[in-house]
Amino acid sequence: MDSSNKSLLKVVPSLLKGAGQVMFQGSAWTGLLFLIGIFWGSYECHAPLVAWGAVVGVAASTLAGYLVGLPDADGEDGLWGFNGILVGCAFPTFLGSTWQMWVALVICAMATTWVRTGFNNVMAPWKVNSLTFPFVFLTWLFLLSARVLPGLDVVSLSVPALTEPAATSADLSFGSLVIYWLKGVSQVFLVNAWVTGVFFLVGLAVCSVWAAVWAAIGSAIALAVSIAFHCDPATYSAGLMGFSPVLTGIALGCTFYKPNLRSAIWCIMGIIVTVFIQAGMDALVLPYGIPTLTGPFCIATWLFLLPCFKMDPIEKPDHSQWHGKTQTTK
Amino acid sequence: MDSSNKSLLKVVPSLLKGAGQVMFQGSAWTGLLFLIGIFWGSYECHAPLVAWGAVVGVAASTLAGYLVGLPDADGEDGLWGFNGILVGCAFPTFLGSTWQMWVALVICAMATTWVRTGFNNVMAPWKVNSLTFPFVFLTWLFLLSARVLPGLDVVSLSVPALTEPAATSADLSFGSLVIYWLKGVSQVFLVNAWVTGVFFLVGLAVCSVWAAVWAAIGSAIALAVSIAFHCDPATYSAGLMGFSPVLTGIALGCTFYKPNLRSAIWCIMGIIVTVFIQAGMDALVLPYGIPTLTGPFCIATWLFLLPCFKMDPIEKPDHSQWHGKTQTTK
Amino acid sequence: MDSSNKSLLKVVPSLLKGAGQVMFQGSAWTGLLFLIGIFWGSYECHAPLVAWGAVVGVAASTLAGYLVGLPDADGEDGLWGFNGILVGCAFPTFLGSTWQMWVALVICAMATTWVRTGFNNVMAPWKVNSLTFPFVFLTWLFLLSARVLPGLDVVSLSVPALTEPAATSADLSFGSLVIYWLKGVSQVFLVNAWVTGVFFLVGLAVCSVWAAVWAAIGSAIALAVSIAFHCDPATYSAGLMGFSPVLTGIALGCTFYKPNLRSAIWCIMGIIVTVFIQAGMDALVLPYGIPTLTGPFCIATWLFLLPCFKMDPIEKPDHSQWHGKTQTTK
Repeated sequence: MDSSNKSLLKVVPSLLKGAGQVMFQGSAWTGLLFLIGIFWGSYECHAPLVAWGAVVGVAASTLAGYLVGLPDADGEDGLWGFNGILVGCAFPTFLGSTWQMWVALVICAMATTWVRTGFNNVMAPWKVNSLTFPFVFLTWLFLLSARVLPGLDVVSLSVPALTEPAATSADLSFGSLVIYWLKGVSQVFLVNAWVTGVFFLVGLAVCSVWAAVWAAIGSAIALAVSIAFHCDPATYSAGLMGFSPVLTGIALGCTFYKPNLRSAIWCIMGIIVTVFIQAGMDALVLPYGIPTLTGPFCIATWLFLLPCFKMDPIEKPDHSQWHGKTQTTK
Repeated sequence: MDSSNKSLLKVVPSLLKGAGQVMFQGSAWTGLLFLIGIFWGSYECHAPLVAWGAVVGVAASTLAGYLVGLPDADGEDGLWGFNGILVGCAFPTFLGSTWQMWVALVICAMATTWVRTGFNNVMAPWKVNSLTFPFVFLTWLFLLSARVLPGLDVVSLSVPALTEPAATSADLSFGSLVIYWLKGVSQVFLVNAWVTGVFFLVGLAVCSVWAAVWAAIGSAIALAVSIAFHCDPATYSAGLMGFSPVLTGIALGCTFYKPNLRSAIWCIMGIIVTVFIQAGMDALVLPYGIPTLTGPFCIATWLFLLPCFKMDPIEKPDHSQWHGKTQTTK
Repeated sequence: MDSSNKSLLKVVPSLLKGAGQVMFQGSAWTGLLFLIGIFWGSYECHAPLVAWGAVVGVAASTLAGYLVGLPDADGEDGLWGFNGILVGCAFPTFLGSTWQMWVALVICAMATTWVRTGFNNVMAPWKVNSLTFPFVFLTWLFLLSARVLPGLDVVSLSVPALTEPAATSADLSFGSLVIYWLKGVSQVFLVNAWVTGVFFLVGLAVCSVWAAVWAAIGSAIALAVSIAFHCDPATYSAGLMGFSPVLTGIALGCTFYKPNLRSAIWCIMGIIVTVFIQAGMDALVLPYGIPTLTGPFCIATWLFLLPCFKMDPIEKPDHSQWHGKTQTTK
């Protein structure tokens, strides 16, 4: 086997881990299950381009890392791909499939890898990571740019407005609640399908049972708070209140802190605050008709990491990187 | 007397100093006068829950400091309480009294203490303090979230709009100007009552005469600039152009710089710029129908501290902390 | 000749270099050609106050540096003037000529020099410069404040809106394209006149041929991307898509990196991303009816400098300052 074939064989796990790292798991199996979930969900929702966008996005952003000569180890861990795969999911979700959209998707996905390096440099003194914010920041700008550059077709963005639409009526049967809860997980990749949520939870458990548990808790708390505070059922029933708290749960519950009682309480506070930040940012983007993406997760997780509180006597409080359980990758 | 009673006796001055630290004064007497002013004003304005919210807010945020084991000295100086008391004033001012509002108030007030630790870590390399920005940042998000979570009732928030309402006519008699000037001081705690302004000035003078002087100058300059630049009288007559310049005045005039001619000129420039930032931010929040809170004060004070200009040959330019005159507390 | 006359002789080149430093050139000849271009364009557009505002702005902000005792070398290089001259161009462009406007112009221009010192302190750990962001940040706030302070007359600001106006029809003849391309350069100083663009390119070439080349490339790429992505012709025909990419081109192409193949490719990516950021920020400011100013340039240039990628084996990646070719000044 020649060396270029070997490289190709090495690149597939890197791309799959790129999918996995969206939820902090550096495991190709996790990434594979995530990708299957994305394909299932996007075909079920009659939006197959979302899944193909994900493939293009993760490839483009991983390529961008090679091109500028970033440390190979990061690329092999999937750290160049996780922002790009989200760009790839977001563009076909919100924009029509013009050639300009695909060009912009590739540019934006590539830029996430470079911007991630820059944002991580910015945040290094504070001992936190840029998380998925390179994706959030650049996708916001590109979606906003579509209002001015109609080559990007805003067909699936909301109409800019100053006030929320009237609320719909709720169906709070147990079966419905389970579906909303699973959609809270699936929306991490912008997919509105409960089966996808099952794939994601299984994918997490393959690499880290704690991650699956905290994702489940995050979505459940988000659902409970949303109902208690009378959120429009149209929002939480599509999982749109859940995806950021899911990520906050995995981040605080078992990624940046070791699971213990203290960190569990801290994580639950973080999840609850994420729900309010999600609602607040929904109001903030309303006049622009763009989505919050995973911005609420980033902000909430930063807020709960920046104080550098010790959850554990021996822990050293540096949260600028995380270690996906790469040993479970075969 | 057992030790828990001693602790209780120690906690009351801490809470009162929490009120005082809103204007940088670590004095329980100052805090007591502030609290009397808040009660007076909120009852006079038929909004008694604002005062009780202040009590709940200062207690919750001070408790939050104990819970995570922050250094006791900060708590005793009132540094855990000053963001929380403002949260406690703001929530009942802008939101209806539902059970969800009180739950959110407690969560938000507690979070300010943790977020303050994080923001101070962020700003440490720049030698500035997060001031009241933890309150501003979190209260903005929670008030915005009320648009999406109707369990929080937006009854007293403005209607989101793109343009300012038509201006009202002005009453510029000397007696009216004095009332506007005193309300500029009282609005630091979101109270619209001139008597409260008197309580606040006296409370400041008890701890620091310079603080009272600069508060008075800040409100006066804000009023003069507002009138000269044709601001809507409805705004400045309620003291809404004055509260941020009051805080900038105390911060730059005698808290982070020692009072001298050079720092006085610098402080006056800072106060004038604060008025424009206040007006600019009023326009910025218009489409959201939320208040600027003390955001203009934070931004202006940072802008005038970050250059680290020396106002005094022997001064070392570290403005990350301040020292309320705790020696005047009996 | 007495010493005050010598000082006066020294101050004129400093002011001219202030004009030149807007495009990173510390050359009085460049600045003189820029100023001639500004006067030509503003008189041609029947807005002569823009040119006189530029003179007042550069003088006020340079004076502000002397007043606080900043290092003289910076002032002599024009580094106190380049934000102020842009303030001076912007205020009469967007606001009516009231006495309050001129007072605000002077305050804002002076503040840019102080705020620049503070912002550079903030950004020092990240090895980037605040560029023209002090101008952008303060002018945004002052223009927004005009909505609340009608002493500042918003006569030439857009009406706040949630959606873009209908697109106009395009004239893509070669002659028109050349005019749009030159206006992309002239709009760096908010001037809508192709002759001014010629003056600016010649002014750049006097000091640095590479700067002129990259300015030309920046405007050309911006035009091409705008047309390919179906931007409203009314926008790009006035040069409004070009001015930020022009600055990104000069910054990345030959100011912060040495010109070579690697940096050229990086610069072209940066220019393309600047166009999307320009379009995105145009949408972002729409509800406020304010212009983006050179904000897109600042953000794009930071994004492409923060990763600290090496374009050159021996380069040390500190981009917190630049060196205008002052040796070409006679």
